Amino acid sequence: MTRTSREVHLLDRPENIPQREQFRIVETQVNDAGDGEVLVQNLFMSVDPAMRPRLAAQTPLNAAIEGGAIGRVVQSNHPDFKEGEHVRSLCGFREYFLSDGTQLTRIEPDGLPLSAYLGVLGTTGLTAYGGLLVTGALQEGETVFVSAAAGAVGSTAVQIAKIKRCFVVASAGSDEKCAWLRNDLRVDVAINYKRQKLRHALKDAAPKGIDVYFDNVGGEHLNAALPRMNPLGRIPVCGMISAYNNFGSISEPVTTLSNLIYNRVTLRGFVVWEFESLREKFLADMKDWIRAGKMKYRETILDGIEQAPNALIGLFSGANMGKMLVRLAD
Amino acid sequence: MTRTSREVHLLDRPENIPQREQFRIVETQVNDAGDGEVLVQNLFMSVDPAMRPRLAAQTPLNAAIEGGAIGRVVQSNHPDFKEGEHVRSLCGFREYFLSDGTQLTRIEPDGLPLSAYLGVLGTTGLTAYGGLLVTGALQEGETVFVSAAAGAVGSTAVQIAKIKRCFVVASAGSDEKCAWLRNDLRVDVAINYKRQKLRHALKDAAPKGIDVYFDNVGGEHLNAALPRMNPLGRIPVCGMISAYNNFGSISEPVTTLSNLIYNRVTLRGFVVWEFESLREKFLADMKDWIRAGKMKYRETILDGIEQAPNALIGLFSGANMGKMLVRLAD
Repeated sequence: MTRTSREVHLLDRPENIPQREQFRIVETQVNDAGDGEVLVQNLFMSVDPAMRPRLAAQTPLNAAIEGGAIGRVVQSNHPDFKEGEHVRSLCGFREYFLSDGTQLTRIEPDGLPLSAYLGVLGTTGLTAYGGLLVTGALQEGETVFVSAAAGAVGSTAVQIAKIKRCFVVASAGSDEKCAWLRNDLRVDVAINYKRQKLRHALKDAAPKGIDVYFDNVGGEHLNAALPRMNPLGRIPVCGMISAYNNFGSISEPVTTLSNLIYNRVTLRGFVVWEFESLREKFLADMKDWIRAGKMKYRETILDGIEQAPNALIGLFSGANMGKMLVRLAD
Repeated sequence: MTRTSREVHLLDRPENIPQREQFRIVETQVNDAGDGEVLVQNLFMSVDPAMRPRLAAQTPLNAAIEGGAIGRVVQSNHPDFKEGEHVRSLCGFREYFLSDGTQLTRIEPDGLPLSAYLGVLGTTGLTAYGGLLVTGALQEGETVFVSAAAGAVGSTAVQIAKIKRCFVVASAGSDEKCAWLRNDLRVDVAINYKRQKLRHALKDAAPKGIDVYFDNVGGEHLNAALPRMNPLGRIPVCGMISAYNNFGSISEPVTTLSNLIYNRVTLRGFVVWEFESLREKFLADMKDWIRAGKMKYRETILDGIEQAPNALIGLFSGANMGKMLVRLAD
């Protein structure tokens, strides 16, 4: 038997904001699981800003795009996976796929929603956790600034910082997002960077300076943060969403880097797989925090694989609050 | 008895390149050494790019400027210092001064020229040594790029990198400087950034990428180096001479910082006093290297304290090859 599976292909490399017509929904036929194979039906797929630079270079054209997904095992001829189990993979942007098991990691939902395993309990959460605690070497009580703080990674980072009893300044692009950050996520100061002059707002928000700036944005945000960094301050660079849609990831000009020198500030890029060895500790901490009501999350869920291109494009116009997901099946 | 001592005062804070009329040579009278005091006559004083940001802020107006100097003890009523001994201090920009001893460190010339203790054997050398080996965590055989490489710190850094068997790319602002770097200091590739397009030249010079970029310049140099950095590359930021003469140390725009992310590159500012604990090891290494002919240095020496303002201004037009010094007495 075969079944029809739709998948999302990239037709053309975007130079600026990706356009809907650069993607195509393609129907394919997926066979039953053969010997040693697992057939997976995807339930949720993840859409992340970090995918954007890959679309400009590594992502193959005219093939299913790679992205995080949670699926259900619908057939298994593999000793390690059983029908009905849930698995995490990088085989998103398609409805069904066959695997020899090597791409799959089993998920034990443990009473928590499956979708969270793509968000706070998944790569998103581990990115915030490792970036802040390892690369950022966050200490209790420090002053932390997080940009794109209403996004999936940012909203996790601000809450980890609050759990570590830090003074947290957050930036986001709408009053609604700022209200959520203040009222629900308990950040100390939320700055709407579209309405406030970031440099002055940061000075007012953190008169004693910033110890850790968790950078999701780059460009003008980084430019404004650098003069506010304290001695031995750290800037873990998670992403630069402001630059992703410029050809070659060219950012807005940063002209304040000389502030690194006398304060001996460290700016360091990181990627989530550096923290793989922390995953168990991360999961245990994060589950505790969710159950204790200290870690909240929001999801923006679009329905149906045909929405995947819009979900990706929407990340760059701020269409999401928290994690952007596409639901492919129930 | 008193003696006349001339000293250099700052009258006005420069916003761009310092101007001669912003300095004044002032005559003062210096007394004999009192109880517990040492009278020092300065022989050489150091003129460094790093002084420039201090002129914009911390340096008091209408008082002798602070700067490194080597002097001779001419009178001593202090048990730790004897007449005729040589001392290092931060009391440059004046001909004579009295000290209670706390500002003085005795120098044992050890058969090497006194002036070297302001250069390769002094703060300049320790800056290159610590910045490259500690902040830059240089490993043998790596590819290293050094900007302002014909300057005092840069020319020391390239030679340390060669001693560590690295492939060394250097930039400087004239063909004469590049010839010295290639022929005398044995760098592998010297780029005249005024004649060559830095970004293309760097790609040609280091086709396998850069592991450590020792940044003395910032701005366009940093912008060109970032896309060439290898995974886990390090950028110790020693100075940003390109930015010092802009109000607030604003650099030329850097727009390529997103290259930090996937390659997990670290950019870190440092200051020389972080390496004080290394000074003995540094001195031992450096003396060995000088005696073995592996560490060469050039000095640009102007004569007489009245030349001090010109020496400082000249740093920003590239008037020096190697260390810029003023000789105050023999």
